[in-house]
Amino acid sequence: MRTDRMDDTLIDVPRGLTNVVAAETALGDVRGHEGFYHYRQYSAIDLAAERTFEEAWHLLLFGALPNPRELAVFRARTAEARAIPAAVADLLPSIAALTRGADALAGVRMALAAVAAHDRLRPLYDEDEDARIADAIRVSAVTPVLLASLHAAREGREPSTPRTDLGHVANYLYLVTGEVPDAPREHAVSAYMTAAIDHGFNASTFTARVIASTGADLAAAVVGALGSLSGPLHGGAPSRALDALDEIASRDRIDGWVTETLLAGGRVMGFGHAVYRTEDPRSRMLRGIAQDLGGARVDFAVDVEKRVLELLAELKPGRELHTNVEFYAAVVMEACGIPRDMFTPTFAAARVVGWGAHILEQAREGKIVRPSSRYVGPAAPVPLPA
Amino acid sequence: MRTDRMDDTLIDVPRGLTNVVAAETALGDVRGHEGFYHYRQYSAIDLAAERTFEEAWHLLLFGALPNPRELAVFRARTAEARAIPAAVADLLPSIAALTRGADALAGVRMALAAVAAHDRLRPLYDEDEDARIADAIRVSAVTPVLLASLHAAREGREPSTPRTDLGHVANYLYLVTGEVPDAPREHAVSAYMTAAIDHGFNASTFTARVIASTGADLAAAVVGALGSLSGPLHGGAPSRALDALDEIASRDRIDGWVTETLLAGGRVMGFGHAVYRTEDPRSRMLRGIAQDLGGARVDFAVDVEKRVLELLAELKPGRELHTNVEFYAAVVMEACGIPRDMFTPTFAAARVVGWGAHILEQAREGKIVRPSSRYVGPAAPVPLPA
Repeated sequence: MRTDRMDDTLIDVPRGLTNVVAAETALGDVRGHEGFYHYRQYSAIDLAAERTFEEAWHLLLFGALPNPRELAVFRARTAEARAIPAAVADLLPSIAALTRGADALAGVRMALAAVAAHDRLRPLYDEDEDARIADAIRVSAVTPVLLASLHAAREGREPSTPRTDLGHVANYLYLVTGEVPDAPREHAVSAYMTAAIDHGFNASTFTARVIASTGADLAAAVVGALGSLSGPLHGGAPSRALDALDEIASRDRIDGWVTETLLAGGRVMGFGHAVYRTEDPRSRMLRGIAQDLGGARVDFAVDVEKRVLELLAELKPGRELHTNVEFYAAVVMEACGIPRDMFTPTFAAARVVGWGAHILEQAREGKIVRPSSRYVGPAAPVPLPA
Repeated sequence: MRTDRMDDTLIDVPRGLTNVVAAETALGDVRGHEGFYHYRQYSAIDLAAERTFEEAWHLLLFGALPNPRELAVFRARTAEARAIPAAVADLLPSIAALTRGADALAGVRMALAAVAAHDRLRPLYDEDEDARIADAIRVSAVTPVLLASLHAAREGREPSTPRTDLGHVANYLYLVTGEVPDAPREHAVSAYMTAAIDHGFNASTFTARVIASTGADLAAAVVGALGSLSGPLHGGAPSRALDALDEIASRDRIDGWVTETLLAGGRVMGFGHAVYRTEDPRSRMLRGIAQDLGGARVDFAVDVEKRVLELLAELKPGRELHTNVEFYAAVVMEACGIPRDMFTPTFAAARVVGWGAHILEQAREGKIVRPSSRYVGPAAPVPLPA
């Protein structure tokens, strides 16, 4: 148990707050050395492979997997929370026009702020737990719909209406691709999105919790997290992994491409991760799912992965570079008809459920996150020059 | 000099990261025990009282006060950066309609995201220092104009066009009140806004730096900071201080109001601060400025302050409760014609300059802020139930 300090001596910690415990959480953990992560007490990979997205969502929000009746209620509740208010729908074409060609997440930050304003979301500290949970469900349910609708509007299509008869993932795929997915594709994207709900204390989750700690409304915290996700140091680059596959183009060019990329000082996209010292467990699962879906592109990706790992072991000995989640996430999303500029938005559509759970946990803590800085400039005060 | 650690042992620190050094900064510091804070090497209060807003802004961005020629160039540059693009101006009535009655900062988050999308602001880590400075100037210059324009639109008025012939503060007052301020009022609001540019590592500044550390675009970091500011634990409550003056209404009711408020367990708005153990230096300066402006309301506020401090010393002995910045900030803003629902937005219009400087400093650091969490839930993994 940690306590509040009364004095105000500054505490030096590593730059970037690396390994500094910024929160205690019962939501889950990443064990980088074991190649394992979990939501509550369950393996996240088991949940992704064997349960629906809504079950994992319920688990994170309420602390327990739903029984069949609870699941039916929760599915209905999240389906209802998908609706876009008419006043916001009217704004989407303008938002899409403004953000055409910009970061794919720029538009959804505006659209989500609009939903929050329309719904009159209240400051977290003015609400009880039930109202906060309702906010979290609303924001997490509507964000994928906003992302898909903005995608349609950017392409000049009329956005489809969300379907409450479909599950969360099937509805999202329907809105993005225009078609109700078949069972293997629904399962594949569900497994990816479920595995992407949470993954320790990344920068966006921390941002969400810092904003939540001020008692801001829940959407403000999510909009901030979406902002963090737009940076190149976070948010992943599954589409860049696919660009690499395109550049390589054929099996005989793998060796040349990898050595050229490394000689030019570039990173081989899809390989290496800040946390795992082993194979990324998400990567292993998604490889299997991609292989179940099958096809020439998947076979090519598997061959590329194999050869890249061999080359990296040879050219970067001792670096232990493994395939990360981005590589097969890209392959799976492509195989399921998700266009490349919707890869990062699809990640956000999943992660917003994790942010919601973290925001609720932080709000229960009820204490502002307010670190200090150390002044390192010239001695003050100096009188103002005449 | 702090270094990166190579192992990954968790480091426990106080809850809320209190007193944890999250960044080294050359921008300034708050010395709570001395009742002193500074921007770079100069007293912030000296700057507020004796220099223009643009001079302090230049100091924070570039590290030095401008000479007369540099100041003229900087004034012209910031004035140009005030313009709202037509595509964004077209959206403002819809944004104002959506956010009418909501948090006053909800609308500006959407509007600023729209400007950033229109201007195609790029990720901080993809830009050189000059481009980042241009972004900071753009975002800091346009935010007050967006706030004032949304205010006009909420009131059903046509927003005025920013005037490049006016200084930053005079233009802001012109847009908010519809009138070019006289010299004493321009000086009064300039002093308040200059004193509000920065004040240590509050939650919104920290939020801006966390988002900036991911390499997100500068507006994403500012939008996140604006979100933090909307929470009741941060962002101040100058309008509530004025509500208190209204409730007291006459000198003979001061004692009754204060004792009733304290007995009901309430806080006396405008008194007490988390950082200062002395009188808040901003409060002292703003009292003087309010008295220079004069009037019955100011005299009443001075009398209320005097009596409240006497009563607090009596009823809360040993607590050292001083008048904080909110009390006289409210009195000064009211005397200068700023409506109550624009008090927090006016604070934001000033603080956005500080956020910009902090974001630039964080972007130069080039390292993601990514703390850890400690898992405190049930032991994992447990097999999924059948």
